[in-house]
Amino acid sequence: MTQNIYDDETFFTGYSRLPRSVHGLDGAPEWKVLRAMLPALAGRQVLDLGCGFGWFCRFAAGAGAASILGVDVSAKMLERARRETDDSRIAYERADLESFAPQVGAFDLAYSSLAFHYIADLAGLLGRVHAALKPGGVLVCSVEHPQLTAPARQEWLADSDGRASWLVNGYLDEGERVSNWLAEGVVKRHRMIGTYLDLLLGAGFSLTRLVEWGPSLEQVAAEPDWVRERARPFFLLLSARRA
Amino acid sequence: MTQNIYDDETFFTGYSRLPRSVHGLDGAPEWKVLRAMLPALAGRQVLDLGCGFGWFCRFAAGAGAASILGVDVSAKMLERARRETDDSRIAYERADLESFAPQVGAFDLAYSSLAFHYIADLAGLLGRVHAALKPGGVLVCSVEHPQLTAPARQEWLADSDGRASWLVNGYLDEGERVSNWLAEGVVKRHRMIGTYLDLLLGAGFSLTRLVEWGPSLEQVAAEPDWVRERARPFFLLLSARRA
Repeated sequence: MTQNIYDDETFFTGYSRLPRSVHGLDGAPEWKVLRAMLPALAGRQVLDLGCGFGWFCRFAAGAGAASILGVDVSAKMLERARRETDDSRIAYERADLESFAPQVGAFDLAYSSLAFHYIADLAGLLGRVHAALKPGGVLVCSVEHPQLTAPARQEWLADSDGRASWLVNGYLDEGERVSNWLAEGVVKRHRMIGTYLDLLLGAGFSLTRLVEWGPSLEQVAAEPDWVRERARPFFLLLSARRA
Repeated sequence: MTQNIYDDETFFTGYSRLPRSVHGLDGAPEWKVLRAMLPALAGRQVLDLGCGFGWFCRFAAGAGAASILGVDVSAKMLERARRETDDSRIAYERADLESFAPQVGAFDLAYSSLAFHYIADLAGLLGRVHAALKPGGVLVCSVEHPQLTAPARQEWLADSDGRASWLVNGYLDEGERVSNWLAEGVVKRHRMIGTYLDLLLGAGFSLTRLVEWGPSLEQVAAEPDWVRERARPFFLLLSARRA
């Protein structure tokens, strides 16, 4: 079973205060790019893997999706999701993505934001997601970029000219990483981009887009503190199609 | 026109002393992985973009290819390639890849080792390569990994625990990079992985494999000096198919 860190009191409290938890999708700086990778949602069957507070489920309903199933392992997040949702097209289900098997051939879109880097058996999950999509169905997902998950410590140092530089180490050594983001002992899985693509293609998907996301120049102009965030990518965004 | 750094006397002398120039493909540590990405070559028409000393052309001939065209901008490299080649199936042509237009629909495999990161108009080149492949034809190529091409300086520093770490900066700012590798003022183009894939997919290819190459544990055991080379990937290897 996946570590259910989101039900840890300290983690949940910290996570609930993040801009993306307070302001929803518009509080997530990568949302605009991720949204542009989505297919048209009107009349579609949508699956959200790691739905959290249900922001994307409600967005999909607003965009005209016919039905949306949001799945998450966290009882605390689903409790808030249900409280903030009033739409009969949206259903929430508590399940561990390590074993969750969505209905076969039932969905047009599988969406997942920042969940897959917690999953140990991602090959298994992607196989079940592939089977759950209709032919021509689409997967759109985001994960922490491997340049973030690789290093044992997440650190900046200045190069010889004083340029803020991100320290990369351990990139080729895939596997568990324990971080102390919002709480102690959060377990993530470091995978290289090549490995994510091996898993996607191996599950039968064809790649349609890959974005190494960092803030745009416009975003940095609006948030000058983010300037060093263009030194390295922060998220990896992927879209793929079931052939 | 591409900077023809390989005809610079200093660069050429330095490059000629590299293991990959002295020992050929077996002197290139990534070759084994790249070779495994190749289709069967027997009876095939092969194009080598940036063929250098012709090592891959002769390998393809040895693997039974029907014809091999090696293209390079460097007169010095082609002179040595011709001197070391005695096979009527292999032809060499001097051309600038920025404008080179291979024969349409003529090739089963387009191969390119460590050349595309010199190309300014890679979209244009990939479009011409796509057109030069037969339906079902394959492109296999390698470039310097963007984690190498991004930073203004290529530097290692120790993290707080003393771990050798690679400094990444400038990753999101694509474009020219001037380095002093083997000679002064070598001009390369930094592109993110996402951009390489946009260009490939945009040219009509579908991705079949992506490898972020660094030395294997076996290679590090044989060459202990390489241990820190697993901190970050060194080359990006790609294979793609013309639909």
